[in-house]
Formats: sequence, structure tokens, C-alpha cells
Amino acid sequence: MKYNPVSKDIISELINIAGERNVLLDPAQLEIFSHDETSKEEYGHMPEVVVTPRSTSAVAEIVKLANRTSVPITPRGAGSGLSGGAIPIFGGIVLSLEKMNQVREIDYDNLTMTVETGIVTNEINNLVKEKGLFYAGYPMSLETCMLGGNIAENAGGGKAIKYGVTSRYILGLEFVTPTGEVVWLGGKLAKDVTGYDLVHLIVGSEGTLGIVTAAIIRLIGLPAAKSDLLVLYRSPQEAISSVPVILSKGLIPTSIEFMDRRSVETSCAYLNENLPYAQCGAMLLIEMDGRDQSIVESEAEAVGDLCMEQGAIEVYVADNRTTQERLWAIRRNIAEALKVYCPVQSLEDIVVPPAAISAVMPELERISSQFGIEIPCYGHAGDGNLHATLVKDPQMPMEQWQRIEQQALLALYESITALGGKISGEHGIGLKRKDFMKRFMSPVELNLIKAIKRAWDPNLIMNPGKIFDIEY
Amino acid sequence: MKYNPVSKDIISELINIAGERNVLLDPAQLEIFSHDETSKEEYGHMPEVVVTPRSTSAVAEIVKLANRTSVPITPRGAGSGLSGGAIPIFGGIVLSLEKMNQVREIDYDNLTMTVETGIVTNEINNLVKEKGLFYAGYPMSLETCMLGGNIAENAGGGKAIKYGVTSRYILGLEFVTPTGEVVWLGGKLAKDVTGYDLVHLIVGSEGTLGIVTAAIIRLIGLPAAKSDLLVLYRSPQEAISSVPVILSKGLIPTSIEFMDRRSVETSCAYLNENLPYAQCGAMLLIEMDGRDQSIVESEAEAVGDLCMEQGAIEVYVADNRTTQERLWAIRRNIAEALKVYCPVQSLEDIVVPPAAISAVMPELERISSQFGIEIPCYGHAGDGNLHATLVKDPQMPMEQWQRIEQQALLALYESITALGGKISGEHGIGLKRKDFMKRFMSPVELNLIKAIKRAWDPNLIMNPGKIFDIEY
Repeated sequence: MKYNPVSKDIISELINIAGERNVLLDPAQLEIFSHDETSKEEYGHMPEVVVTPRSTSAVAEIVKLANRTSVPITPRGAGSGLSGGAIPIFGGIVLSLEKMNQVREIDYDNLTMTVETGIVTNEINNLVKEKGLFYAGYPMSLETCMLGGNIAENAGGGKAIKYGVTSRYILGLEFVTPTGEVVWLGGKLAKDVTGYDLVHLIVGSEGTLGIVTAAIIRLIGLPAAKSDLLVLYRSPQEAISSVPVILSKGLIPTSIEFMDRRSVETSCAYLNENLPYAQCGAMLLIEMDGRDQSIVESEAEAVGDLCMEQGAIEVYVADNRTTQERLWAIRRNIAEALKVYCPVQSLEDIVVPPAAISAVMPELERISSQFGIEIPCYGHAGDGNLHATLVKDPQMPMEQWQRIEQQALLALYESITALGGKISGEHGIGLKRKDFMKRFMSPVELNLIKAIKRAWDPNLIMNPGKIFDIEY
Repeated sequence: MKYNPVSKDIISELINIAGERNVLLDPAQLEIFSHDETSKEEYGHMPEVVVTPRSTSAVAEIVKLANRTSVPITPRGAGSGLSGGAIPIFGGIVLSLEKMNQVREIDYDNLTMTVETGIVTNEINNLVKEKGLFYAGYPMSLETCMLGGNIAENAGGGKAIKYGVTSRYILGLEFVTPTGEVVWLGGKLAKDVTGYDLVHLIVGSEGTLGIVTAAIIRLIGLPAAKSDLLVLYRSPQEAISSVPVILSKGLIPTSIEFMDRRSVETSCAYLNENLPYAQCGAMLLIEMDGRDQSIVESEAEAVGDLCMEQGAIEVYVADNRTTQERLWAIRRNIAEALKVYCPVQSLEDIVVPPAAISAVMPELERISSQFGIEIPCYGHAGDGNLHATLVKDPQMPMEQWQRIEQQALLALYESITALGGKISGEHGIGLKRKDFMKRFMSPVELNLIKAIKRAWDPNLIMNPGKIFDIEY
């Protein structure tokens, strides 16, 4: 595709639409919009201009302008994405939704909130906590990420076994099409078959089909009771092998998080936290929740017993909020810690059928020894979703790493695919995995996806270069 | 669109592909494929030929042939649809999936079943009942409908408050595109963001985007405990007004079904059933389920108390399977009974935000008196989804009814839309509501839908004339 540069006339029009202080041109200001949290320098690309509109009508005007002038437009939330989805690889306009963060309505009768997508996800929970409600669609990065990014990526997180992922909590969308038209899709409805389900086509489409400016989200009752178990194992394989056993017993944990020794140690070092049992081979962090504390505790006990039968060394019960929060902080900070200690890496989010997860560990070991690289691993074991992280040894020359990384990823994706899995469970394809799509997605499916893209975005201006390459 | 007739050559090719006894040409045999359960004679249209292939590759060959020769193709399951979705209004080929009913795999480790879509939905539950599992996506008509139809319509039913609708239980699809290509979409995965969510675009697209030949469905644990309440009220308004109160208390019933007096009486007469309290103004049939009988019973008691506080006359607890089954049989047979006693009718499935449901009754009364027609009403009150049924008085001349029906539907849909609702919650648009789509769906949304249709089905052969009219 040939795109036009952002001309002076276009800048003037952007200022007319959004106001001068919502149009950023200073390279120092633009720099932060040239990358996201994907740890790879080569993914960066500077936008020509950043716009931070405050209203849906302004977003629509900007999109119309971009469409008319064939300028690429890259929507952006918090920039906390992990697949390069918000990087403006063709330059053009970055449309940041950071100032569209108003709560338009909290409807306690229908248990919904209508909110703009630039809101930080955790704000949603803070707003309704006192009423005993929460938004269950949030991912691990809830304190920094924005709802719009969660919707774009169909974010997952640690509660999917019991609560599902973002898509289950999105009832309606205010949507700006790639030609700049505004439409409300869906509604506060438990059922709706009036036309195609466009809401759930848009959720997870990584900003390639248009811009979501607001959403109606579903709130649910905050469970009154919670119990966390920290289960220690000699080896990653023993820990992971417990997971399908737990899932098959009819007990439904909120989370079964897996952490290997390297992940735990690194996060503890990063947090200056001292976990006395950090030396074991691997851990599961298991959460149960529900309405009644005694039921939740008896279910947690049953899970703990199962783990011991499966060869766990020890089960610790975290029965107070402080200890629970400490454990979860360790889990939540693994990604950040690994990035600090191993800045050159490839953070993956492979997903396999839950029962196939115990077959993943031997594959990781094989790939690790075949390519001579370390692969610390942690993640949402209960969902079959693991953050295997290929990390570069500081001694390895960069050129060698780059070659090995691609080969090791290929081997990883091949083994995951053979297990019935997919290359991304929650981080998305974006830029990072785009080249692998041709290999791991059937051409029929890829063509169906591209056909929708072409049909909705005839000038291919909307977040171009993500998920797939496309041309006429 | 101009379609070609089914020529002798095409018949020969169909026989080559599917075998002679899977190609029906005798008008007496074709007649049953000319209509579904939508009660309106004028919706009928004869197919030119019916094919009942036994394999996905045969389905693909038939679709390729239809696409190459510009012959319309209408996929069909049990023909139990309620919006005319399976009626071949342009003639051509009806592709009946009735012989594609094999269970390909039951995966007890991942709690999934891979099954062809011509299976009768209840068969699925019968197959896994003994293992303590069930498929929670089934609708009320589970004993006759087929999984393929449930997927095409994104069927709802009586368990949506707690379990959601069909879409939540569809993990993967074997799909034949309108150009005859076969692709597997989705998988046995708790999370998957590898490309757009095409699975949930196809679910609910009423066979206009292609043919689903098999699906991976999610199984869940069958609740061990169940309690049903039959709650009597003086008036429909009092019954309906209880519903949002129950929903707001954090108790999550499996079902809150509403039945007005006319509905209950008609179903009892049809079943030759004697419900001593059939004379009350309206009833709620409420089901609670869970793992533990005593918890379920205490929650049911809490719901019963709430209903009494809201003005119920009486709460009966159905504590044994026989009584429970009797009550549910009455509920399930209302539609059939009303069809027998009032054969000229319009069965609706309007849906509003759950908290808005108490505003529906006054609207129904207003429309009933304005147009001088009866509107018996029942349905899934807990989902905001009501089967208001406009019935023709036997005395009213047909011509007058036809005029009034359209005006009354328009008034009904207008009032529902004003409440934030939609014209179809679970039966679909099909043929029956197609003309209303132009009025009640924004042109932007309708254009987005049509753009996908055109992109996937360039010759517009796949179930043409449903949901929307389309042309080049």
C-alpha cells in the first residue's frame, strides 16, 4: 500500500477537529508513541502526528480525514500491548484514546457500565467495588492497561477458567468504522440475534477494523470469599501435570497459575521480596472464590489434597489479604522482572487444550537444549496458556540470537500446533507474530479474515501492517 | 440477483457427489423442505432439489457446484426454526444436514465433544449424562432441533441467566465457505486470539455465511442439585415486576420463566394436564441449580421469600423430578399449544434489558387494545426475552389480520426499541423479520453486515434472502 504523508493541511485540519493541545508534533513527545511494551527495538516506528481527541465525534472526523487523504491511522490505548499492535509502522496518525476516559453510566439495575475506552481498566473495579461488583474481564496488567486495549486484544488474564476472558463481558460497543461512521452495536441484552454478532468480531481484531470509543460492559457480583493456595513441586513437569487432574474433578478454580523456579526467583529479586520456598522446582498459585468462606475453604482443601496426591512437596494456604497480595504481586511482576534482567527476549503466550498442557514442558526442554537458550516459563496453566519466554544469554552475539530466536519460535509454534494449540492465547498477533501467521493459519482462514478487512476498510488505513499483510 | 435453475446436468452432478438416494426430486418428498415451523403459509417455497450428503467433502463439492452454476443453496437442520431461515425462497438446492449426525470424538480430558451438526441436540446430553456432564447451550426445543440450527440462530433458551446461550459453548467449527472451501476454525482452547474470532461471527449468521458441518462444543458438569419454584401472581405485571428484584439480589437462578394465564391454560388443555392453580393471572417458573442440595434449597427459599414480598399469592416448591418435569412440560409446550389453538399468529421473541422487562407488559396491553388483538405472552423473563404472541381471532377476516399484524408488530418493535431492546433475542431475523431490519437497525450496521456477506459469498448463493436483501 502507498500512503500519503501527513501534510501541513492535514495538521491544520486535525487541530480544527481536536484542538491545538490535542495534536502532538514535537518529536520528543511523539517518541513514546513509537513503541509499546514488546521488547524489541526494531519494532519501533515514529508516528508523524499524535492526536488525543476528547469525543467520539472528533474521532470520527479524524478517521474521515485519514480515509479521505489515505493516511494510516493507528489507534492506541495505554501502549502496554505485547505484540506491537499500537506501533505506527507506516507512520501517519496515532490516535490515542487516553483522554476518552469518561464513565457515561453505571446501571446498577442491569449491572452494566457504559464507559469510554481510554479508562484504565482497574478504575472500573475501583468505581463499583463498594457496591460489591466487579468487571471480571480484566487482564493481569489492569493497573496500567486501558479497556480499549483489552477489547482490541480480547485480553485474557488469570481468571479465565471460571470467568472467561474480556469478550464475555463486552455487551455493546460504540464503534467508529474505517470510513468514519459512528454506530452503536449490541446493547444491555442477555440475548441478541438481531443481525450478525459484530461486537465479538470487533473484540480481538486488534484495531484493524475500526476504533472502539466506548463499551457497555457487564458487571457481576464480587465474590465475598476467596482462598489462595501456593503449591510447591520438585519440577515444572510435576506441577503442570497436576493441572488437568484438578480441572477434571468438577472443582472450578478462579485461577491456576504456574511459575517455574527462574520466574519466581527473578520476580522476587525484582521486588526485593523474600519467598522462603523460592528454591523449589516450580509452583502453582491456585485461587478459589465464591459466596461462602467455608465452602471456598473446603474446596481449596480438596484442591490441595489433589495436588499432594499428584506429588506436590507442600501446600501453603494464604489465608489473609496481605499474604495473598504478596503472592499475586510476585506472579504479576514476573514479566516485568524478566524484562529487566533479560532485556533481549521473546515473551510468548502459546495456548494448548488444557489437557495437553503437560506435554508442553518436554517440548520447551527440547527446544531449550536444541537451541542453547533458556526459556523461563510461567502463566495461566489452567487455561492451557503459558508465557514461555525465550531469553538471550548476555554472552550471545546479537546476530546469532536473532537467527536462533526465529528458529526456536518456529520450533515452538510447530510443537504447539501439533498439540492442537495456537500461537497466541491473549497477547495477539500484531507485528510480532505476523510473519508466522502465513505458516500456522490455514490460507482459507487468512483469506476470510482479509476479506472482512478489505470490505470494511477499503483504503486499508486502519492500523495497517498488523495481523496480516494485505494488498489489492 | 438472478439465479440459474437446477438443470439436469446439475442433478447428475449432485447424484455423482452425494449418491442417488441422497438426492430428492419427488415433489411429495420436497414439500416438507418448503417450510419450517414459522406459522405463516406465505413463507413457504419449494426447493428444486434436496440433497442429504453424508460427508463434509460432499457438502463442499455441492457448494462448489452451486457457486459455479449460480444456484442458490439453503442449509437446513431439523426445520424447527421460527423465522423462516431454512426456507428456500429462491428455489435451488436445499442442503439438509440430517445425515451428518456422527459424534466424532468425546474428549473427557478437555471436556469437549466434536460432533456433526445434523445431530439432534438432546442426543448430545444423552451421550454424556452418565458421566455427569451436559451441553448447556441447548434451547427449549432440544428434543427436535439440531445442533446446526442452534449454531445458525445462536439459540437461546431457558438457562441463559446462569449459563449463557449457544455461542458460549461453541469452541470450534468445521466450516464450508460459500466458495466450497473447508476450514477448521477455533479449537479446544480456553483462550485464542490468533486472528479474528470468526467462530462467533458465524454463530448466529443464519446460514448466510457458509455451512457448519461439525463443531467442537464445550461440556460442563451437570449440577447435582436442582430446585424448581412455581410462583403464582394475580397479574402479569406483578409477576414480571418481581424479575428485576430477584436478579438484583446476587442470586443467580438457572431460569426465570414467565407464563401468563392464557399461555398456561392453552398448554394445559393441549397436554390434557390439570394444573389446579391455572386460574391465577400469571406464573413464574424459577429454577435454581448447583452442586449442593441444601445450598440450592436455601437459595430457592430466599427467592421464594422475595417473590412473596413482591406480591406473589403463593410459592409452590417442586421437590421431585416428576413434578418438576410436569411443570417444565407445560412451559415447553406453550408454543406448540398456541399454534394448535391459534394457528394464525405471529410468535415474537423480543428482548429488552433485564431491568426494563416490567415496562413491557403495559406496552403489550396498549398494543393489544389499540389493535383489538390478543397477545398471550410467556418466555425467558430473566433474560428480558419474551414470547409475546400476536394471535388472530377466528372471526377476524384474514385480510384485516394481515394489515393489523404488520401495524401491531411495528408498534411492538418501536416500543421495545425505545426500551433499549432488539426485535429478536433468539429466533433470528430470517425471512420473518427481514423487512423490519431496515427500520430498526442502523444503516451503518446493516452495511457492515452486508459488506461481510458480499466479501465471503461473491455470488450470493448462500441462503439468499435471509436477514437482509442484498444486491450489487
